Amino acid sequence: MRRTLLTVSYDGTNYAGWQRQQNAVSVQQVLEEALGKLLNREVSTIGGGRTDAGVHALGQKALIREPIDIFIPTEKLPAAVNAYLPQDIRVLGAETVTPDFHPLRRPARKTYIYKIFNAPVMPPVYRLYAAFERRGLDVLAMMKAAVFFVGTHDFRGFSSTGTEVQTTVRDIYALDVVKTKDMISITASGNGFLYNMVRIIAGTLLYVGLGKINADDIPEIIKSGDRNRAGKTMPAHGLILHEIEYIF
Amino acid sequence: MRRTLLTVSYDGTNYAGWQRQQNAVSVQQVLEEALGKLLNREVSTIGGGRTDAGVHALGQKALIREPIDIFIPTEKLPAAVNAYLPQDIRVLGAETVTPDFHPLRRPARKTYIYKIFNAPVMPPVYRLYAAFERRGLDVLAMMKAAVFFVGTHDFRGFSSTGTEVQTTVRDIYALDVVKTKDMISITASGNGFLYNMVRIIAGTLLYVGLGKINADDIPEIIKSGDRNRAGKTMPAHGLILHEIEYIF
Repeated sequence: MRRTLLTVSYDGTNYAGWQRQQNAVSVQQVLEEALGKLLNREVSTIGGGRTDAGVHALGQKALIREPIDIFIPTEKLPAAVNAYLPQDIRVLGAETVTPDFHPLRRPARKTYIYKIFNAPVMPPVYRLYAAFERRGLDVLAMMKAAVFFVGTHDFRGFSSTGTEVQTTVRDIYALDVVKTKDMISITASGNGFLYNMVRIIAGTLLYVGLGKINADDIPEIIKSGDRNRAGKTMPAHGLILHEIEYIF
Repeated sequence: MRRTLLTVSYDGTNYAGWQRQQNAVSVQQVLEEALGKLLNREVSTIGGGRTDAGVHALGQKALIREPIDIFIPTEKLPAAVNAYLPQDIRVLGAETVTPDFHPLRRPARKTYIYKIFNAPVMPPVYRLYAAFERRGLDVLAMMKAAVFFVGTHDFRGFSSTGTEVQTTVRDIYALDVVKTKDMISITASGNGFLYNMVRIIAGTLLYVGLGKINADDIPEIIKSGDRNRAGKTMPAHGLILHEIEYIF
């Protein structure tokens, strides 16, 4: 009897997000159905993080809830499940975890990457995986602003309403802005993120890049807790859940 | 009266290649129709390079054949045409060229990039823009092999039949193999490439990486002119026409 944790990667373009829901196809549902066919029984999973409709994942985690006496060795499980999955969802890895492991309660470092393509026109090969901004951006100002987000802060001004949370305090371990040719990558690592938080931080950095928000005002904007003082919520398709690392 | 050269970028996934043809939708046809709607007349174009079905382009060139008295300034043309184009084709730029300019006869440096994702499983976000190889590859051997392609050679063993050409001799200016995490990028620059040549070179480098072909045998394989001694033709979707630079 093993408890198995999967690493799952997906193209979120055609899904209503990670979380199983009524009246729309989610990644979790398709994964559970594939696992169900493989193991010939009902399977349910717990994800490591909810990703919204259109958001991608390189390293989502999914715990198979039921301790199953799987006849397939753990290391062979990814290839076996992938045979039942569509091309836009892949299980990249599988590992055995202790019976008390819970993907949402275990301390973790989560890393998201938000991409903004910044040029007068967007080449189509990037359109599904990056937001687009035609106006020139002051990337140095964005880098300067990013530093103020690092640390333990109450991020209630950087979240959308919709999910009940016990606290809006989060630790951001790193927030890096990198520009490679015309692509700006905003990498955010932390112990967790509020609903839409990465997309709002990206939108706030965009506003800094546009000169709508002054980089030096970021500490004051965070402190205010006022959603209206932060930037816009950036579109889903520019976001990818890059990695979840558990502190086992 | 101006002659206008466009820089065109496209996602080749849903097209039967660049070249206009019967019974299938090509990029050229869609571009010409968009230009036709914008200029309210029939427009024909000459491409800078033929890309096959499924091949992408970042910097394809397209000459508008007719010298038209365009009422739109050249620098505003991209945005104007883009309003008539689907999301998977974009005009990135436009420039005025001399009346004798011909995109296929003018000396040019063409650069293609072939991408191979090399890991046990392919994350879905890469699947439309990179080939996939699960087996481990000896990238250093691939780098070593690549050097032998550089220079002026008769590449008849590295082409598929299908297009009549006056000569199968081509100059390769650079052939670089770079690995970033699990993604191998093969960048090929030259004065021109034969039909399927970049995909066959990529397939030959893949075979070197797999140990099926010895890097030191490449000069002899090129010299033999024998298609059967080269590697396989890699799939179209891993290839992108990166840039065409004219020596004006």
